[in-house]
Amino acid sequence: MMTIKRLDIADAQKLIAGARDKAVEIGVPMCIAITDESGNLVAFERMDGGKVTSITIAIDKSFTASGAKKATHEYGDASQPGAPAYGIASAINGRLMVVGGGLPVIVDGEVVGGIGISSGTPAQDVTVAQGGLDAFLASL
Amino acid sequence: MMTIKRLDIADAQKLIAGARDKAVEIGVPMCIAITDESGNLVAFERMDGGKVTSITIAIDKSFTASGAKKATHEYGDASQPGAPAYGIASAINGRLMVVGGGLPVIVDGEVVGGIGISSGTPAQDVTVAQGGLDAFLASL
Amino acid sequence: MMTIKRLDIADAQKLIAGARDKAVEIGVPMCIAITDESGNLVAFERMDGGKVTSITIAIDKSFTASGAKKATHEYGDASQPGAPAYGIASAINGRLMVVGGGLPVIVDGEVVGGIGISSGTPAQDVTVAQGGLDAFLASL
Amino acid sequence: MMTIKRLDIADAQKLIAGARDKAVEIGVPMCIAITDESGNLVAFERMDGGKVTSITIAIDKSFTASGAKKATHEYGDASQPGAPAYGIASAINGRLMVVGGGLPVIVDGEVVGGIGISSGTPAQDVTVAQGGLDAFLASL
Repeated sequence: MMTIKRLDIADAQKLIAGARDKAVEIGVPMCIAITDESGNLVAFERMDGGKVTSITIAIDKSFTASGAKKATHEYGDASQPGAPAYGIASAINGRLMVVGGGLPVIVDGEVVGGIGISSGTPAQDVTVAQGGLDAFLASL
Repeated sequence: MMTIKRLDIADAQKLIAGARDKAVEIGVPMCIAITDESGNLVAFERMDGGKVTSITIAIDKSFTASGAKKATHEYGDASQPGAPAYGIASAINGRLMVVGGGLPVIVDGEVVGGIGISSGTPAQDVTVAQGGLDAFLASL
Repeated sequence: MMTIKRLDIADAQKLIAGARDKAVEIGVPMCIAITDESGNLVAFERMDGGKVTSITIAIDKSFTASGAKKATHEYGDASQPGAPAYGIASAINGRLMVVGGGLPVIVDGEVVGGIGISSGTPAQDVTVAQGGLDAFLASL
Repeated sequence: MMTIKRLDIADAQKLIAGARDKAVEIGVPMCIAITDESGNLVAFERMDGGKVTSITIAIDKSFTASGAKKATHEYGDASQPGAPAYGIASAINGRLMVVGGGLPVIVDGEVVGGIGISSGTPAQDVTVAQGGLDAFLASL
């Protein structure tokens, strides 16, 4: 039997609040998704003005970050044409996201969940995901 | 050109808070989904203990209620064997939900969104969805 | 933060071994799937002669049992025409299984995973799932 | 009428055991999938620590290798931008994998199944798949 650490809904709300604050700060309304360490959705918020197409993208970025235990942008280089993971972007029915904006939530060295952001540029999405992560980690 | 009324994220949070309160009251942790009048997800919360299988079901109940502009349980009779809408339950890749727990959010006679609940019995899910709706309408 | 108990691969292999023994005993080659408490596949075995169509069915029975925290056959009555959960069988893109053969794996009152069996009659599938569960629980 | 050679569950277990040994040797817990010559799953194991996103990827690598009768990394060159098979990576709902880690299992010049590995780098995945193949072929 294994013992697993998983973020709870209170943790998810802190992650969302931190991301929302950062999104307001940079002036880009975002879709914000939080998954648990198994990739299942825990909480989601589409800020007023967040993009409809970004609903699934935010959820899948979070799924990828928690399930693969790394930031989605880390797949960026590895999945370029000619690189070893080229083609991975369409895996799992397209759920495997290689675009920036998904970060694993790591506590004491363990992945306990993920955060996925979409509606801005990938750089903005990463910034907002990091904002959520920073706020959450500061609260521990 | 049309002008559409649509719930915003603040409205969605009131719906979720009302549903959460009712879920706590009856002692069943729920998945709670809010969609806009177009059926697109606005907010979601899986309470600690909410079922993994209920994530998609709650979202799809809300999608059905807002998109079809009626409660999911209203499909109950119409979708029975021999009834006119028999078979509708598997439509849209199974997203069309005929099980209770999805309610349209109606303001001034217009559907502005939906709420979908899952993890309890259908009766419990309806109760919690109504709890969310009541809290929201009381706040207007 | 939550702490979760989850079966590991050694547990999964005990569940499969117990199910396989029971399948051999009743003379029906089976597809045997083990998921963790979040519904994600841990181990799978198609015995020689197990049905191709049963691969996904076994996996989805196990997903349903662990995700919904109950036996798939418990949905049987509730999902009949006229009953409250009628129509649930096509939910989650058809992954929600209401046919017998999926059982949650419960240890100390917590769902730590699921077992799903397919290729026989539903009654045979339940028998084999129970065989896996019994062997596993006896090993604790 | 055709006569088909196909690996059985005992063969699949040898392939998994060989892959697991190699995965332990290189220190990367893997998802290991074995399909038959028709691309249908025969056996699967997620080692403790294997990635959730790799469940489907391992299965689909094995599906691709057995179904297309070649190693998934052999698609690498052919599927690059400008090359003849460009775009193939998203075929079959994304199941066609062009990332390394899927190998056909060939006996007496015939493809009798496939092995698919995921959770490491593509190079690690290929190494572990080859480890499974070597152990199996040595047992014949």
